[in-house]
Amino acid sequence: MNRAAFYKGNHSFVVTETTPPAPAAGEVAIDIAYCGICGTDMHVFHGDMDARVGSNRIIGHEMSGRVAAVGAGVKGLSVGDPVVVRPLVHCGECPACKAGYTHICHKLKFLGLDRDGGMQTTWVVPDYTVHKLPTGISLKHAALVEPLAVACHDVRRSRLRPGERAVVIGGGPIGALIALVASKAGADVTVCEINPARRAKVTEMKLTVVDPAATDIAKEFQEKFGGANVVFEVSGSDAGAAFMTTIAAARGRIVMVGINNRKPPVDLFQFFWRELELIGARVYEVEDYESAIGLIADKAFDFDTFISEVKDLSEIQQAFVGLDQSPDAMKIMLSIGEAA
Amino acid sequence: MNRAAFYKGNHSFVVTETTPPAPAAGEVAIDIAYCGICGTDMHVFHGDMDARVGSNRIIGHEMSGRVAAVGAGVKGLSVGDPVVVRPLVHCGECPACKAGYTHICHKLKFLGLDRDGGMQTTWVVPDYTVHKLPTGISLKHAALVEPLAVACHDVRRSRLRPGERAVVIGGGPIGALIALVASKAGADVTVCEINPARRAKVTEMKLTVVDPAATDIAKEFQEKFGGANVVFEVSGSDAGAAFMTTIAAARGRIVMVGINNRKPPVDLFQFFWRELELIGARVYEVEDYESAIGLIADKAFDFDTFISEVKDLSEIQQAFVGLDQSPDAMKIMLSIGEAA
Repeated sequence: MNRAAFYKGNHSFVVTETTPPAPAAGEVAIDIAYCGICGTDMHVFHGDMDARVGSNRIIGHEMSGRVAAVGAGVKGLSVGDPVVVRPLVHCGECPACKAGYTHICHKLKFLGLDRDGGMQTTWVVPDYTVHKLPTGISLKHAALVEPLAVACHDVRRSRLRPGERAVVIGGGPIGALIALVASKAGADVTVCEINPARRAKVTEMKLTVVDPAATDIAKEFQEKFGGANVVFEVSGSDAGAAFMTTIAAARGRIVMVGINNRKPPVDLFQFFWRELELIGARVYEVEDYESAIGLIADKAFDFDTFISEVKDLSEIQQAFVGLDQSPDAMKIMLSIGEAA
Repeated sequence: MNRAAFYKGNHSFVVTETTPPAPAAGEVAIDIAYCGICGTDMHVFHGDMDARVGSNRIIGHEMSGRVAAVGAGVKGLSVGDPVVVRPLVHCGECPACKAGYTHICHKLKFLGLDRDGGMQTTWVVPDYTVHKLPTGISLKHAALVEPLAVACHDVRRSRLRPGERAVVIGGGPIGALIALVASKAGADVTVCEINPARRAKVTEMKLTVVDPAATDIAKEFQEKFGGANVVFEVSGSDAGAAFMTTIAAARGRIVMVGINNRKPPVDLFQFFWRELELIGARVYEVEDYESAIGLIADKAFDFDTFISEVKDLSEIQQAFVGLDQSPDAMKIMLSIGEAA
C-alpha cells in the first residue's frame, strides 16, 4: 500500500493512501525506508511555516531508501540501489548559482518544505539530488546522512585543523553531530548546553559537555588556552551571539549555524581587535553529502545512541507530539517502507 | 637641534628641545623626515585616549626617516639608510604571539601611543620594527607606508580575487587607500561616502564614489550584480554595520576595519542564509609593510593627491586644530628633519 503523511496545518498530520507516483524524465522514484524528524519539521508542526508549506504538504527530508524506478535519461542508478536525497533544487541562473554556490541559490527550493518530501512510501525527486549509498550500509543510520552532512559542511566551513580547540554552543542534534565530526577531524571539542537531559545525551556520545550557565567557561578558556580556535554557534540565541565572541581565541573562526533573525547586538570591536572571523554556513554541498555517507558507512560514531526512537509512519502525529514534549530527545525517526 | 612634540593633554602640544637619544643594544635611532597625522592621533588630541597615553607623550607613527645610529647587535641597517617603522612591539609569550599573530599580541604596545612615537627629531625603536626602504624612494610618500600597510592588510584579509566587485564603506584616508589597493589588485571598486568634500577627494583619485544617503546602492548592487563580493566596513558606524550585510553577495566577505565598540545590531540571519563572512582586520603584518613599500616605490598611485598639506613640526598645534576643522582633509604631514 502506498501511503503519505500530509501536514494539514493546526498541529496535525493525516496519513492517507496514495497512488504510487511515476518518475518523469530526469527523475527518480525512491521507496523510502526511514525519514527522521528535523527541527525544521517541528517548526512546520508548530505552524510557524504555514505561509511557506501550506496545509496539504508532505514534509520530511532526512531520509533513506531504495530506487524504485528511474525516468528517461537517468544514468548511474538502478532499481534497488540504496540512496539518500540531497533535498535542494536550485534555479541555475541566479548570481549564487552562477558563482557555483547552488546550495544557497537565491530561489532555492527545499524538498519537504517548498515541494513534497520524504514522509511517504514513494518519493519522486530530480536525479541530481540522489546520492547512491555503499552496499551493506544501515538504512536506519543512512537517514542521518542529511543532518550529518550539515555538520560536515559546518566543520568544513570552519577550516578546522587537527589539534585545534573547538566549542559548540548548543548540544541538540546538529550541535552533537558537529561535535562528533569536529572530534573525528582531530579537534579538542567542548559542547556548551544548558539543558541537563541534552547534556546527559551528549555525554553518552563520549563528548565533553559543560553547562555555560554554571561556570564562566569563556573566562576559563581564555585563561587556560587563550580561547577557542573554532566556535560553532548552533543555539540561534542572543546569548549564543554574545558568548561566541567572548570564548573565541585571537584569529578564532566562529561558524554561524543557528538561525537568529532578531539582529542581536554583536561585539564587532572584538572582530577587529582579535581578528575574529564569522563564517555563515547553510545546508551542504555535494562533497558534504559524500563525507557524511563515508562516516555512516565507516560506522564512525555510535549512531544508535543518537536515534532516540523509531515509530511507524502511521504514528506520525504521536511522534511529533511526543518530540514536542521531549526537548531532550535527539533523533526520532519514522519507519516507512519494507526496505527497512 | 633635537626637538620633540609632547602631547600635554587638553588639546595641546608643546614642542621642546631634547637631548638626542642613543640606541641601546638591539635598537635603532632614526632621524625622522616626515610624520603623518593619523585618525588615532586626532583621538589623542581630543583627549579620548588620555588614560592610555598620559599627558607627556610624544605621539606619531606614520613616519619615514633615515638611520642615525644602530645599537650593538643590530644587523642589516647602516647609518643613512632610508627606513620606516612598523610600530608594533609584541610580548612573544601570549597565545596570539605563540600562534604567530604577533600583530594582535594580547599585550601589544603601539609605538606613538603606549610608548613615545615619531613626532620628534630622533626616534629610537627596537630593530625588528624597522623596514629598510629602496634607494631613491620619496620620504614624503614613504610616510604613507603605515596607513597603506593597513590597506594592504585589509585587502589581503579579504582574499580578493581579480575581477571581483568590492565596496568600501567610508571614504576617509584608510577607505581611500583600501579602494586604491583593491583596484590595483584587480577589483571593481565603489566607495560609499556621505561627506561631499571627501567624495570630491576620492573622485580626484580616479575612484568611483557614491553617496549612500542619496541612492539605494545596496538594492542597485543586488539587482545589477547580485551584490558585492567584498565589503570593507571602514566607517565604524552602526549604519555601516547594517549596510554591510545588505550589499554583500552570496558568500560575500565583509572585512571589519572600522572600530565599532557599541555592539550594534547585526543581521546574523544573512550570514547564515547567504553564507557571508565577517573578517576582522587590525593593523598589519611584516608582509603588508613590504607590499606597501613596494607600492610606494613603484609610484603605484598619485600619492601627492593624497597628501593635503605638509607643516613643520613647530606648527603641530595648528596642524591638529586645522585638521579638526577640516573633516574633508586626507593626510596632513609634519616635516621634521633635514632628511626631508
